[in-house]
Amino acid sequence: MSSALLEQLIEAFRVLPGVGQKSAQRMAYHVLERERAGGQRLSGALAEAIEKVGHCSRCRDFSETEVCATCASAARDAHLLCAVESPADRLAIEQATGYRGLYFVLQGRLSPLDGIGPRELGLDSLGARLAEGEIQELIIATNPTVEGEATAHYLAQLARQHGVRPSRLAHGVPLGGELEYVDRGTLSHAFGSRSEMGP
Amino acid sequence: MSSALLEQLIEAFRVLPGVGQKSAQRMAYHVLERERAGGQRLSGALAEAIEKVGHCSRCRDFSETEVCATCASAARDAHLLCAVESPADRLAIEQATGYRGLYFVLQGRLSPLDGIGPRELGLDSLGARLAEGEIQELIIATNPTVEGEATAHYLAQLARQHGVRPSRLAHGVPLGGELEYVDRGTLSHAFGSRSEMGP
Repeated sequence: MSSALLEQLIEAFRVLPGVGQKSAQRMAYHVLERERAGGQRLSGALAEAIEKVGHCSRCRDFSETEVCATCASAARDAHLLCAVESPADRLAIEQATGYRGLYFVLQGRLSPLDGIGPRELGLDSLGARLAEGEIQELIIATNPTVEGEATAHYLAQLARQHGVRPSRLAHGVPLGGELEYVDRGTLSHAFGSRSEMGP
Repeated sequence: MSSALLEQLIEAFRVLPGVGQKSAQRMAYHVLERERAGGQRLSGALAEAIEKVGHCSRCRDFSETEVCATCASAARDAHLLCAVESPADRLAIEQATGYRGLYFVLQGRLSPLDGIGPRELGLDSLGARLAEGEIQELIIATNPTVEGEATAHYLAQLARQHGVRPSRLAHGVPLGGELEYVDRGTLSHAFGSRSEMGP
């Protein structure tokens, strides 16, 4: 490498997920050859976001304001609360469904061995919020993994303690999927919880 | 999206090659959730490289100094000059082969329809350099594409005009491929069995 700054830039790109040595090289060369203006914007956007984006005090999602736009919106249904593990999950639900309620972002899942308990997931503030009495249904959208399921059970208990109805996303065969390629656990679950077809 | 800065960051990530909406989201979330320090380093490295990395006045490769380390090095064989299309190609050759000569980075290939002629590739300065008389062999390592081959023929003529022997990487490099993505073994073999170009 003939430039120390270039080497440093390639190394820096490797903090991004899924970016190895080769992709990092490509990114660095691409920016320097063809996208210096875009690179400058990226540098600025990174620095600004890292400095200013914190967490919403209501839902724990990323926000640069004390309360995020979704939580502050009067247009959202304040009777519905959807608990997700991460901001990316929240975004996926927001983009894919017509959901108009509020969210609660756990920023993780219960994992006692890693020292992640109810406090780390902000479940005390979630409990306080459920106790306010406005929320009627807690939609639990944690991932269908072992830890996600354990978290879901804990959240369902918490909801019932405060007289809130817990619900869970349906599990089953993905739309457009082929039975042949669906994993056994999913297929078995889908078979077991089959529902009667209407006329 | 609940944060304008986050949205801006995701948009900014899309200038990187091979990064679409989904990867950009993943990168932004990853940096904000787990890699704020790394993100800050990346922001700084980008800004610094964009500001300070220019081109070596001898070989046109990226360099933050007037003459790059390779061109300034007394340990390199000044009788050999290898012409490549891009800094990435130069790096690929440097990493894959034991080549100890110098480089000339065209920063493109002849493409009259796009307005890229000899002047845009710095061939006037290459000609002047060949005229100095120190270089004995011009190793032409442009990509084996139509435009790369046309560039190679032009370079070979230029070399002969100045009494310099032109050579071309051996076949073994897949036709239609790009040097940057060829595996090291193939590239090393092709580099080793380069042959003199006929008239």
